[in-house]
Amino acid sequence: MLKGKIAKLAVSDVRFPTSLEQHGSDAMHANPDYSAAYVVIETDDGLKGYGITFTVGRGTEIVVCAVEALSTLVIGKTLEDIVSNFSGFYRCLTSDSQMRWIGPEKGVIQLASAAILNAIWDMWARAEGKPLWKLLVDMDPKQLIRCIDFRYITDALTEQEALSELISIGIQLNYDLPEEMLKEGYPAYTTSCAWLGYSDQQLTQLCSTALTEGWTKFKVKVGADLQDDIRRCSLIRKMIGPENSLMIDANQRWDVAEAISYVTKLAEFRPLWIEEPTCPDDILGHAAISKALAPLGIGVATGEQCHNRVMFKQFLQASALQFVQIDSCRVGSVNENLAIMLMAAKFRVPVCPHAGGVGLCELVQHLILFDYISVSASLENRMCEYVDHLHEHFKSPTVIRNAHYMPPKDPGFSSEMFDESVQKHQFPHGEVWRSILEKNGS
Amino acid sequence: MLKGKIAKLAVSDVRFPTSLEQHGSDAMHANPDYSAAYVVIETDDGLKGYGITFTVGRGTEIVVCAVEALSTLVIGKTLEDIVSNFSGFYRCLTSDSQMRWIGPEKGVIQLASAAILNAIWDMWARAEGKPLWKLLVDMDPKQLIRCIDFRYITDALTEQEALSELISIGIQLNYDLPEEMLKEGYPAYTTSCAWLGYSDQQLTQLCSTALTEGWTKFKVKVGADLQDDIRRCSLIRKMIGPENSLMIDANQRWDVAEAISYVTKLAEFRPLWIEEPTCPDDILGHAAISKALAPLGIGVATGEQCHNRVMFKQFLQASALQFVQIDSCRVGSVNENLAIMLMAAKFRVPVCPHAGGVGLCELVQHLILFDYISVSASLENRMCEYVDHLHEHFKSPTVIRNAHYMPPKDPGFSSEMFDESVQKHQFPHGEVWRSILEKNGS
Repeated sequence: MLKGKIAKLAVSDVRFPTSLEQHGSDAMHANPDYSAAYVVIETDDGLKGYGITFTVGRGTEIVVCAVEALSTLVIGKTLEDIVSNFSGFYRCLTSDSQMRWIGPEKGVIQLASAAILNAIWDMWARAEGKPLWKLLVDMDPKQLIRCIDFRYITDALTEQEALSELISIGIQLNYDLPEEMLKEGYPAYTTSCAWLGYSDQQLTQLCSTALTEGWTKFKVKVGADLQDDIRRCSLIRKMIGPENSLMIDANQRWDVAEAISYVTKLAEFRPLWIEEPTCPDDILGHAAISKALAPLGIGVATGEQCHNRVMFKQFLQASALQFVQIDSCRVGSVNENLAIMLMAAKFRVPVCPHAGGVGLCELVQHLILFDYISVSASLENRMCEYVDHLHEHFKSPTVIRNAHYMPPKDPGFSSEMFDESVQKHQFPHGEVWRSILEKNGS
Repeated sequence: MLKGKIAKLAVSDVRFPTSLEQHGSDAMHANPDYSAAYVVIETDDGLKGYGITFTVGRGTEIVVCAVEALSTLVIGKTLEDIVSNFSGFYRCLTSDSQMRWIGPEKGVIQLASAAILNAIWDMWARAEGKPLWKLLVDMDPKQLIRCIDFRYITDALTEQEALSELISIGIQLNYDLPEEMLKEGYPAYTTSCAWLGYSDQQLTQLCSTALTEGWTKFKVKVGADLQDDIRRCSLIRKMIGPENSLMIDANQRWDVAEAISYVTKLAEFRPLWIEEPTCPDDILGHAAISKALAPLGIGVATGEQCHNRVMFKQFLQASALQFVQIDSCRVGSVNENLAIMLMAAKFRVPVCPHAGGVGLCELVQHLILFDYISVSASLENRMCEYVDHLHEHFKSPTVIRNAHYMPPKDPGFSSEMFDESVQKHQFPHGEVWRSILEKNGS
């Protein structure tokens, strides 16, 4: 199954007009149209792989252009060529001697690498007939380690340390973990109740429904206006009661001093964490905020816009975060997330993935299952974000039961979308966009 | 002159086949084709502005695509709209609520912003009939400060501090500085003698010629092979003698421990700095390297791939560099470089710009002249990189006299290229590339 050559790579600009209803609105992204650069690869013997990277509307065409530029590094290779030396292929894709200049390993070109690598991991898992998390869990630790490019992180985690960590955890592990997970699922929290653009009435109603569905952990968007935030947090804390968890998310709205002062004023609502208090590049800023908020019992969470393993390494080294929010599409796919999860384990910081958008839940659930079964073996202070939008466009959508992610069973990375969804939402020529653009007179 | 509306924005993918002769080769970029996304803006009353961002070949089309996406934020505005609230326009361009997701302020989208903003600064300087450095030097400090987006850097430099710094320097300054500069020029160092792909013979010959031309500061590319580097550094140190300056540049080749060990072995050649020893994102790594090399008298220099003011802020806060290498095209143009130069001044770290490539020397000379005349007033440990390639394509090329940059006199940012050069080198349809691609059978 691994011998066919990758003969085709197609990429689509798929956008969902979520801004029409203020879904996904936050302090920095007022009107996102949840979108994706959607990649389909196919071998000459008919094996397929599907990968995405998530975007929020305008600019998706730039990521599509980058995927096309990188595609020459993929076409003609067999899956075996790639996975037998996966860190080598990773390096080749992310460090092309000309294209690395426009990154390196950050922004558009890294998002494009993620989409392609996600498709390759999907193809690999399909070839093995396993959901991706199971492929990872079953893999020999040595082979897992060979998927990681350790360049620039050996001062925090060497190849040998990573291997010892995996092997020692493997020996201690309760081999019933996968079975338990299949029954109970992985704990989730919801962000669907309190987007910034929602009215109080909408917020109250959504929160009330979520409570009846069994949700116990809730995230609220903050950062645009302090009085509004006090009202919204107070409302939600009253509704969910003192025992449930409340997290707040500022989406990079503040400078360092401002973050400390603002969050201090929300401390009475006892948030577990403040997410993205400032610029995602500001490691030292996050460290200062972490230090100032620790006495209040509020942690700092970040990661959805942390662009590579070198940044995560420094966040960990500087004690600049207390929750590592990996993202399945921002960094270099499973390969780079393996490095990040292993570093988080070494630094004893829990991983709580970012999800939502288009397909982020579908993909990242595989990674957090692997993290639980093969790396952390703990649920303490751990949970995975969930947002209930756009799952209907995926062939193997996430299954949430009693506020838990139920482990996917279909082979692959759960990344395949329905052809019809892709076609309808292609920008700008799919029927959904033709109709919107006609209405707007464009 | 500032009232016309920007009615047109054209962008070209311009590439020079420098890889054919190994110009620009280093430890990470084996075969760069020096390239640019070249932007021309024009108002409806006929004023023009020219801007570039530098790239090294493949991937330039992605930056071009990003410039096109951002152009909707520029078209229809007057130059007065823009410069009367320049930090507001900067924020609008770099923080579009959808496009910021694929950055923010990093990689492709930041390079594209730089190209557009460079064109706007060029247009402004032309409208005022001054070379850009003179526009900056003559500008009221309050107006200068209003060009800077202080978001995320107020923990290192507030607007008020920046203003006080500029005003107090202004009062102390020797008003003969501009006149002196016009006579003597700004000191430069050369990187043209020792690219990694050059033979020893080529290196010896170039170095010998450079010495006769008056060069006293030389940079050598290192990092691919220690024995080679020892031989090359020894050769150059012998040729230039003990008094002249030698700098070495690894272009991100090493991990942290490797950098320390490797550079220690080159310490006998007394390099003034090691440039880009590791990942450009690794602030804490550079801090560790700086600390380890300080006893050897070797500083750390970095910046050409440092993607924004927030990263420079942290490099300064962490004492992670001893030479700030600003780049005219990597970060958000003059606006962001003003912030970086003012932070460097506050932290008392000298600015030694990165240049070379296509047009980087033409542009950055304006910034370093401003830094000298209005910010640092010092030449101690200061110099600007020079590489003698591709200047013939610019209408106002750099003038080097006795290893000094002679201040440009033509109005603008020296960023305009000859139409013929642009047309010939357009990728892939310009005649230079048609002929190369035909030879290669593509």
